[in-house]
Amino acid sequence: MVDIASGSPRVETPTTAQAAPAAAPTASTRPGIEEPAVSTGPLEVPAPEVDVEALGRRLLGTWADLRLRARELVADPDMQRIEGLTMEEHRARVFEQLKRLARDGQVNRASPKELGGEDDHGGNIAGFEEMVLADPSLQIKAGVQWGLFGAAVLHLGTERHHREYLPGIMTLEVPGAFAMTESGHGSDVASIGTTATFDETHGDFVLHTPFRGAWKEYLGNAALHATAAVVFAKLIAKGVDHGVHAFYVPIRDEHGEFLPGIGGEDNGLKGGLNGVDNGLLHFDEVRVPRSALLNRYGDVDEEGNYTSPIASPGRRFFTMLGTLVQGRVSLDGAATWAAAVGLDIAVTYGNQRRQFTASSDTEEEVLLDYQRHQRRLIPRLATTYAQIFAHDELLRKFDAVFSGAEDTDADRQDLETLAAALKPLSTWHALDTLQEAREACGGAGFMAENRLVGLRQDLDIYVTFEGDNNVLLQLVAKRLLTDFSHRFAKADTGALARYVVEQARERAYHGTGLRTLGQTIADFGSTARSVGQLRETNIQRQLLTDRVETMIGEIATALRPARKLDKAAAAALFNSQQNAMIEAARAHGELLQWEAFTRAVDAETDAGNRQVLTWLHDLFGLGLIEKHLAWYLMHGRLSAQRAQAVTAYIDRLIGRLRPYAQDLVDAFGYQPGHVRAKIATGVELERQEEARAYREALRASGDAPTPEKSARDR
Amino acid sequence: MVDIASGSPRVETPTTAQAAPAAAPTASTRPGIEEPAVSTGPLEVPAPEVDVEALGRRLLGTWADLRLRARELVADPDMQRIEGLTMEEHRARVFEQLKRLARDGQVNRASPKELGGEDDHGGNIAGFEEMVLADPSLQIKAGVQWGLFGAAVLHLGTERHHREYLPGIMTLEVPGAFAMTESGHGSDVASIGTTATFDETHGDFVLHTPFRGAWKEYLGNAALHATAAVVFAKLIAKGVDHGVHAFYVPIRDEHGEFLPGIGGEDNGLKGGLNGVDNGLLHFDEVRVPRSALLNRYGDVDEEGNYTSPIASPGRRFFTMLGTLVQGRVSLDGAATWAAAVGLDIAVTYGNQRRQFTASSDTEEEVLLDYQRHQRRLIPRLATTYAQIFAHDELLRKFDAVFSGAEDTDADRQDLETLAAALKPLSTWHALDTLQEAREACGGAGFMAENRLVGLRQDLDIYVTFEGDNNVLLQLVAKRLLTDFSHRFAKADTGALARYVVEQARERAYHGTGLRTLGQTIADFGSTARSVGQLRETNIQRQLLTDRVETMIGEIATALRPARKLDKAAAAALFNSQQNAMIEAARAHGELLQWEAFTRAVDAETDAGNRQVLTWLHDLFGLGLIEKHLAWYLMHGRLSAQRAQAVTAYIDRLIGRLRPYAQDLVDAFGYQPGHVRAKIATGVELERQEEARAYREALRASGDAPTPEKSARDR
Repeated sequence: MVDIASGSPRVETPTTAQAAPAAAPTASTRPGIEEPAVSTGPLEVPAPEVDVEALGRRLLGTWADLRLRARELVADPDMQRIEGLTMEEHRARVFEQLKRLARDGQVNRASPKELGGEDDHGGNIAGFEEMVLADPSLQIKAGVQWGLFGAAVLHLGTERHHREYLPGIMTLEVPGAFAMTESGHGSDVASIGTTATFDETHGDFVLHTPFRGAWKEYLGNAALHATAAVVFAKLIAKGVDHGVHAFYVPIRDEHGEFLPGIGGEDNGLKGGLNGVDNGLLHFDEVRVPRSALLNRYGDVDEEGNYTSPIASPGRRFFTMLGTLVQGRVSLDGAATWAAAVGLDIAVTYGNQRRQFTASSDTEEEVLLDYQRHQRRLIPRLATTYAQIFAHDELLRKFDAVFSGAEDTDADRQDLETLAAALKPLSTWHALDTLQEAREACGGAGFMAENRLVGLRQDLDIYVTFEGDNNVLLQLVAKRLLTDFSHRFAKADTGALARYVVEQARERAYHGTGLRTLGQTIADFGSTARSVGQLRETNIQRQLLTDRVETMIGEIATALRPARKLDKAAAAALFNSQQNAMIEAARAHGELLQWEAFTRAVDAETDAGNRQVLTWLHDLFGLGLIEKHLAWYLMHGRLSAQRAQAVTAYIDRLIGRLRPYAQDLVDAFGYQPGHVRAKIATGVELERQEEARAYREALRASGDAPTPEKSARDR
Repeated sequence: MVDIASGSPRVETPTTAQAAPAAAPTASTRPGIEEPAVSTGPLEVPAPEVDVEALGRRLLGTWADLRLRARELVADPDMQRIEGLTMEEHRARVFEQLKRLARDGQVNRASPKELGGEDDHGGNIAGFEEMVLADPSLQIKAGVQWGLFGAAVLHLGTERHHREYLPGIMTLEVPGAFAMTESGHGSDVASIGTTATFDETHGDFVLHTPFRGAWKEYLGNAALHATAAVVFAKLIAKGVDHGVHAFYVPIRDEHGEFLPGIGGEDNGLKGGLNGVDNGLLHFDEVRVPRSALLNRYGDVDEEGNYTSPIASPGRRFFTMLGTLVQGRVSLDGAATWAAAVGLDIAVTYGNQRRQFTASSDTEEEVLLDYQRHQRRLIPRLATTYAQIFAHDELLRKFDAVFSGAEDTDADRQDLETLAAALKPLSTWHALDTLQEAREACGGAGFMAENRLVGLRQDLDIYVTFEGDNNVLLQLVAKRLLTDFSHRFAKADTGALARYVVEQARERAYHGTGLRTLGQTIADFGSTARSVGQLRETNIQRQLLTDRVETMIGEIATALRPARKLDKAAAAALFNSQQNAMIEAARAHGELLQWEAFTRAVDAETDAGNRQVLTWLHDLFGLGLIEKHLAWYLMHGRLSAQRAQAVTAYIDRLIGRLRPYAQDLVDAFGYQPGHVRAKIATGVELERQEEARAYREALRASGDAPTPEKSARDR
């Protein structure tokens, strides 16, 4: 087991005890903002100490041991990405690594016990996510094999499919593709063009690609390695289109040649993930037996009669897709841990690298002592923490649903909404953080050996696959709108009318600045009081929650006339709210992350960790409020005075957290074998010390050249 | 010459005449916002028509013909990047392309006429920028050879250096490196560790690398091809350190081996630009003749006496660096044109790609008819236009300085400040835009064949090289603060005191919402009036200018006590304003772009183009105000009511511009050989049409399967 107790053995950095650096401001000097009276500032009480090991355990979450076991595998050089391989070499290497994963068996924890698995859904995903640190290509190719291809057989198939196909999938004897997306339809899966028509004469299905846009595309494993695929097609029986269903289809023979009627192409080079062989597939009247239909949610008998346990075609479709939610769940975790390693690299380097003298004539400042550098990295650290805690909750929800412990329709819908809200935020955050980390390391950040660019290139596609982020956020908004409308489902028209009037009145009240003015008068001359309130968890909750509710309420009100409009006009009205819906869903996701962070702070028992986590939590919460400050001001929720206090307090929090930045990244528990970035190994510190020793020796020798200016002054 | 008259022959898209699509809202439906009464909406007067050719000519700017000539070269497949080459192959290919550039001669337009150049500084850069569309590696490797290595000899050397070295540099007979950056010092060039000590006995310089941090690093051409380098080192003569000077140093023999005392390493694989062979160099007591010193700004005679035309070492240093400003100037242009090609690809695809039915049962919507998609792409198009116009002004300023037409110290300082303000904004914009374009194209955007990922990877380093963006913005802020303090340079203490009092009073006045309230009352019930005002150029100018001035004034006030503080305390105070300084500099850069766009609109004579450019200009200006809306609200510059009008009017402008999106990207004048993205060639439209024809034929045949829901209802 990896020892996270020792902190980060590869770096020698200022410890907590050295505390606040000279150049870090201890108080806001923004004009007009008084110094808030806060009782726990470093000047007034001893600085708290972080117990890095204990904090690290918290971060590892519910399946800590499985994560650590997976990290052992990640630390094995054979499992790691090598920079600069050709696409062909990279693909071959990852395929070999996949075989190793299959032998290791951890990737099959979610399989049924009777087939050698553990029926452990949460633990399976937790371990799988960690693979991103070995090579995102390995993570995604494994995800295709076991998380998509295998999971489709498991969740959409029935026992005979499990018996027949899962063993070969688990051992990788049968590498497979997940053939859902088509060139013409990605986000709108319900509109795919591939058909599976039941032939009553032969008693089998005819799988067919009717036009170029219906080619399956971007399928992992399809270009080279897959010998079978789960193919999604419209099931047509007796002239009726029963919508999208999944079929198990062999596609290549033992020599790797396509079977008759099947063709394909290689997607070739991509922006990243080049260890995954993505490709295209198409089917020319390919016959598959009736038993190829993965028939858990729909079946066809020998006469071509279709039956399904779910009567509504719409609900059936969403139920089938819902069983595949684990992709989104795992990307939320993988993206979060990738952001964490980016911050580990940038913070470690920022604590060693020096540039420009400021506070002394001879000593240069370390980068992380610059206010801007802190502003670039520390708030992103807060967001990463929030995501880690939110992700653990998501994973527990996922486990509860898939273990059957809490598996109602409502549970499944909550899980899907939660995943759809969190995955967009964390995958965008990973790209943003890896980019900021890369820039914060300057030219060194651009070198492949320092990993930031490679991770970002690989994770780029995470924001549009397994559900395009913008499309997912619209799903979340629709759910929120549905919840909102349920409030009025049983209300009479009178209640509805009263609500609309109240909404309008509230808008007038908030919108014209009256409340703002009241607050301003109350606050005037006392930013301290404002800050005091902003630190309160309930105030932060109220601000964040109110924003989501108000946004959804406004959209619902705007959409109300849609019922009376024709389809085109209703679509135009809906479209006019699309941007607002996505922003509301994002606000909802941020609130979920904040709530998870709040619960994590509440559960913290170590006093030092609790204090530092509280600061980090407040930085996250106030950071959200600062990001949307214009909204709060326009809606009269914050006065100008109080809004200024938000930024002033954020400055304070960043100053307080700066001495703990290294502890906070060390708590991620990464060892050198996980980070593998040359600049974060301590070479920079060695260079700095060598240069300093040289300069000191030169000064001592008396041979140091005199600066021209001093020479002239003499 | 490339014909930009024909618009874009590769795409068949909705033309202007087809105008507003069904799903695009024609008016804001945001609750509580009245429809503003605008006289030029598409419903009231005929929609303007864009003259794409004429607009394209405007965008090509002052050196249009040279840009078009360069684009001919770009369209030659031999000059273009091939995806998937190994680093070695890519480096070799780019080196061959560089030889072709040398033969072509365009890259040497800035060289002196007597050596075969044209003394044409602006035209030289204009053509050079276009190379980014062939391959950014080619652009940067050419930039190293002629824009850095060659330009250093030209601008820092004197006539004997020009005669001796420039011919070999121009023909690429002598490939060279620009050895400035060291492992330990990038942004702080003044602190480099390499020394060049004059030896009075031998009459030559001894070039030396005293420690590992002083190795030269990230130097283009250094890993493989350079046989010489301009090396920056501290010049030490008679025990006095005269600061950084440049030396012409042969580094490799005719077999490619390092000369005695010189060593180096290969930087290896990078996040992009892998056609450039970046490497490290170090010097072990290497002797170079006295004449190796590029002696325009400082010289040493045989006895070791140092002389310089510039007495102040600080001013001398900045003058020397200032002669190399062309790197920043050209990156501003290259980044802007790269963003333009990204938008060309995404808008073209967004006008062809369809997903989800909304306004009809059978027809899917094209992506660009979705509000969110418009919000993602059209404002970035506005920013790109602003940058193109601002860049042309920058290039003219550059030409005026380097041609000697307007070459005072003040001109040079203005040029440097302008470049330092614009380069960060445009390079960040390129990364942001290429990423958004990539996401807007979904999985297709991630394929290397569609170019977006490759361009983004190559341009990544543009934000930290040739001056880290954050460092450049601090330089701009310092200049703004200096200008600010000059207002009071000759004022008595009374004037200063009065100003401070006024500042404080203004803050009280703006900060407590009184002015907000006044505005709210005046505006109440009439968003139309607010919108009407926001459309006025003078109102936009006032809002944008006021923000820069106020921010700088606040910082200056905050920094005032620094004079009385010791070095460490002053540094801490300065550091507390670092973030605010960078934000103020960014606001200044945005204002400069807005002003350039304003002048471009004023100069437009075609009525249709003027109308569409006016909308685009207003979208850019109001977009800036929306981005900083919290600031305007907190400082009492906008009421909540008027702030809501900003967003409402932006929605309207985007709706109006949507039908012109294709015209606006077509005006960039790119031909298929420049764009080279498969998804922008019309294949998507072909697919859509094939699928539609198939579905129509199926419906007509009567064999179309019945949807399950309809079948059951019967």
